[in-house]
Amino acid sequence: MVMCQLRIGIAQINTTVGDFAGNLQKIARAIDEAKSLGVDLLTFPELAVCGYPPEDLLLKPQFIKENLATLNEVIKYSPGITLIVGFVDSQSDTYNAAAVIHHGKLVDIYHKICLPNYGVFDEVRYFSAGKKYPIYTINGGRVGINICEDIWYRSGPPTIQAISGAEIIVNISASPYHFGKGKFREEILQTRARDNVAIIVFNNLVGGQDELVFDGESMIISETGQTVVRGKQFEEDLIVADLDIDAVSQARRINRGWQRKKAHLEKKSLGVTRVVISEAPPVILKPPVSRPPAEELSLSAEVYNALVLGTRDYILKNGFEKVVIGLSGGIDSSLVAIIAVDAIGASNVIGVAMPSRYSSSDSKSDAELLAHNLGIKLMVIPIEPAFQAYLNMLAKAFTGTEPGITEENLQARVRGNLLMALSNKFGWLVLTTGNKSEMATGYTTLYGDMAGGFAVIKDVTKTMVYSLSQYRNLKANTALIPTSIIDKPPSAELKPHQQDSDTLPPYDQLDPVLTAYVEEDKGIEQIIDMGFNRKVVEKAARLVDRSEYKRRQSPPGVKITPRAFGRDWRLPITNRFKD
Amino acid sequence: MVMCQLRIGIAQINTTVGDFAGNLQKIARAIDEAKSLGVDLLTFPELAVCGYPPEDLLLKPQFIKENLATLNEVIKYSPGITLIVGFVDSQSDTYNAAAVIHHGKLVDIYHKICLPNYGVFDEVRYFSAGKKYPIYTINGGRVGINICEDIWYRSGPPTIQAISGAEIIVNISASPYHFGKGKFREEILQTRARDNVAIIVFNNLVGGQDELVFDGESMIISETGQTVVRGKQFEEDLIVADLDIDAVSQARRINRGWQRKKAHLEKKSLGVTRVVISEAPPVILKPPVSRPPAEELSLSAEVYNALVLGTRDYILKNGFEKVVIGLSGGIDSSLVAIIAVDAIGASNVIGVAMPSRYSSSDSKSDAELLAHNLGIKLMVIPIEPAFQAYLNMLAKAFTGTEPGITEENLQARVRGNLLMALSNKFGWLVLTTGNKSEMATGYTTLYGDMAGGFAVIKDVTKTMVYSLSQYRNLKANTALIPTSIIDKPPSAELKPHQQDSDTLPPYDQLDPVLTAYVEEDKGIEQIIDMGFNRKVVEKAARLVDRSEYKRRQSPPGVKITPRAFGRDWRLPITNRFKD
Repeated sequence: MVMCQLRIGIAQINTTVGDFAGNLQKIARAIDEAKSLGVDLLTFPELAVCGYPPEDLLLKPQFIKENLATLNEVIKYSPGITLIVGFVDSQSDTYNAAAVIHHGKLVDIYHKICLPNYGVFDEVRYFSAGKKYPIYTINGGRVGINICEDIWYRSGPPTIQAISGAEIIVNISASPYHFGKGKFREEILQTRARDNVAIIVFNNLVGGQDELVFDGESMIISETGQTVVRGKQFEEDLIVADLDIDAVSQARRINRGWQRKKAHLEKKSLGVTRVVISEAPPVILKPPVSRPPAEELSLSAEVYNALVLGTRDYILKNGFEKVVIGLSGGIDSSLVAIIAVDAIGASNVIGVAMPSRYSSSDSKSDAELLAHNLGIKLMVIPIEPAFQAYLNMLAKAFTGTEPGITEENLQARVRGNLLMALSNKFGWLVLTTGNKSEMATGYTTLYGDMAGGFAVIKDVTKTMVYSLSQYRNLKANTALIPTSIIDKPPSAELKPHQQDSDTLPPYDQLDPVLTAYVEEDKGIEQIIDMGFNRKVVEKAARLVDRSEYKRRQSPPGVKITPRAFGRDWRLPITNRFKD
Repeated sequence: MVMCQLRIGIAQINTTVGDFAGNLQKIARAIDEAKSLGVDLLTFPELAVCGYPPEDLLLKPQFIKENLATLNEVIKYSPGITLIVGFVDSQSDTYNAAAVIHHGKLVDIYHKICLPNYGVFDEVRYFSAGKKYPIYTINGGRVGINICEDIWYRSGPPTIQAISGAEIIVNISASPYHFGKGKFREEILQTRARDNVAIIVFNNLVGGQDELVFDGESMIISETGQTVVRGKQFEEDLIVADLDIDAVSQARRINRGWQRKKAHLEKKSLGVTRVVISEAPPVILKPPVSRPPAEELSLSAEVYNALVLGTRDYILKNGFEKVVIGLSGGIDSSLVAIIAVDAIGASNVIGVAMPSRYSSSDSKSDAELLAHNLGIKLMVIPIEPAFQAYLNMLAKAFTGTEPGITEENLQARVRGNLLMALSNKFGWLVLTTGNKSEMATGYTTLYGDMAGGFAVIKDVTKTMVYSLSQYRNLKANTALIPTSIIDKPPSAELKPHQQDSDTLPPYDQLDPVLTAYVEEDKGIEQIIDMGFNRKVVEKAARLVDRSEYKRRQSPPGVKITPRAFGRDWRLPITNRFKD
């Protein structure tokens, strides 16, 4: 048994946008479990009640209303516990809010102050900014509550709350994943904890929502900046820990720097409110909880897990059970197939090989071997009859022209049509297999290989497709993706002896240039100055610029980089700018 | 000859995003023309230098740089005139700005204060808000300058400038069109003019940019709220007028209400700056300019012209010369064809009839008659060979299933493939023909009839498709769109005896329900309370909700309603909300 002043629980749940009943059920279940573990204060992610991000559903009055009704249901589960629950508050304005609920009552509401309106975020479109910095006394400890972006600025709400007395900062978030974000987030939180000599409780959302994946990895950072507990990545979790509030008071007493900062800022701080929820209880003995920080995943493991979670949630939250994938015998479709198997199980994944007159015999046998390794069903439908029919139908119109891109695209579109026909007939979701290098350069056929409901690896460069494939094989301790697939030169196989390198620069040169141009807003001359070949850079930039119309019609896919071709990429199609 | 204190010119030009050289040329040409007409002060639209809206190009440092370099070029054309030119200012922050240029010098820069971040606008994503309210003395008159959204609020920048002495308010805008917007805008401007007893000079952009159309219709409103001059709608224009500044002073002297308001607000106003550019010149005699307000278009004419301009600019600004359209013999494709002809001329429009085993003989003859009436080339490619090839290829997989939607979609996709093949081979842009009623309900085939580069009438309800067709025939004084096409019941002709009304409620019931649900955020019960049939409303709402994934992959099209399926519609695909 331990003496416990404040036992906190972090409910890292996977909500669904608009699924009020389902979200309520998850919230209620977490409350029950937390109560059984003796939790005093239980937190939930940002907008837990309605899911995140609800986008323009926020403009529907009925959506807001149902969200408020659901919050009232949550309150009914609160006897014997204090809760912090994200929801949409709507008075004369609309706010991204946190309800502070105690023992059957709504005690107070916090309104998010810093509204992100960059990258994938549009919060100024929907929300007004809060102006108050509340501090709640819970079990005698003083707790400052804020939401996501609020903690990203050095002199933001957490700092104002800390210098006004808060020993614990609870931040409820829906912070989307991109590779390396977890580590970056942890460093920010550690800095905030140290600077404010406060315990930071960070509750992140987990789950996939269209192109976004929320990676969880909620954590508690001590007032010295140490990570005390780290939640699971890409999975639901309930993290319980006992907070040592006295340690904060003590640390503050001896920290001269903090005292100076407090004295300096205290005069300025405005809008601090104070609510006493519960005074320090008599010493309570509880069975101890303790748990080391979860081990962090490697970069490949992290990205791979993000792809699996994003894909699984898109499939299941949209009511699909099975997926269908065109298997070319190439590495992209192989990686997508194995991600799908890891997401929803081999029995729910159907592969379709659609050889053409230009397919090598290796392609078919490689697809077969892959399907065998993964234990998935493989259908084989040669595309020649439809391809030949098109050529005949167009012969008159094409008189006097040479075969070229048109004929290549036709093959890709026959395949797209076949997959969509299977999808329409059997209700299978089509997963497309294009990677980010292709999406960037337009090395892809609109309505062909781009046809489908979810583009699993659209934000994964070709280079990373290779490293993820190797990672997955290594993890399986066997060549699930056959070595022959990994080793052969990339080819679309849409004309004889075609290779990607006929059209595109080699991927090891192309990919870093694309990253600089697409994700880092670097100009052509700047990228050349970084040491890249002028021809490669100019060609890559032109290809990116002129493929916007294709990307605009692409299905969503999992965002894993700092800038994906999705909500965080809003380029005009009509655009004469040539950098 | 007239005595002229201040002659103003409004350059209503059609800029292109990122086309710095082209925009500079248009600006220079307008300056030359204005000088020849004795203009003292010439204005240009919002962000005239770089085009509007540049979206994420604003995140590229090179884009900003080239925009600044182009502004410097503009200054070189300014000897002998004063200019107000929209551009992107970039200091430590980025601003939506107006350069005030006089006689070879950049005199000052205004920063837009009210940044719209709703509907189609994302200006908070890019710009910081200005804080200063400058007033410039030009030819002795005091001129307040502001940008677009700044004039939409009652106590916004124009009011602060007016009570601080500005007799003329120049507002440079890029205000996108939807039906009725021009009238609404004029009323707002008249109110501002009357309330502030000031002359309002409103310079709007004209032209198409992806899904947006800017309708021009720049205007000058007198201090009594009368529209003195109104520029052309949907065309470039140079509007020149002599402003009677003395009339403003006189009106203010006798307007007690305005004096009270001024006395009340004057104390509060902050951030007003004053720059003298030129004092009142000796009385100048100039040849008179005068021109009555252009006549306003009817609703149908207005929408029709918006569609023509949006389509023309998308085609030409993206470097296409010709378009190809699948002609079914139905009203949607007929309307699209005639819009295309009006946009780029009959010789640049190719129609393709693609009859199937289910096409009626009327369909083909109607398409032929239409093509004949419009004087466009018609190709005929029956789709049976490819359709039959697909059925054979899929026969094994489909064993034991009944024909249905899958087979219908296959036909639409064969057509989509044929049009795309012609596009790929000959560089023709494919115009799609789906209307808003179809886009809303998902009564359309992804990669089939949705395949193409520009969806001309995607924001036009079926009901309005009929009224526009009738309008165009009436204007031509002949049945350009054959009566047989207008009179027959709508059908997709994808199975025997099919009619739209088998699947959808009649359009005269469906369309108003869709408008309420999609454009007005009304809930199901609310719409039923408006007097609509419960079954129709519930069905319509469910169809809208579950078609989001299709809309996400649709090409852009001209926005003509207050809320189109484009930048102003941001619904999640993964969404369990059922209103």
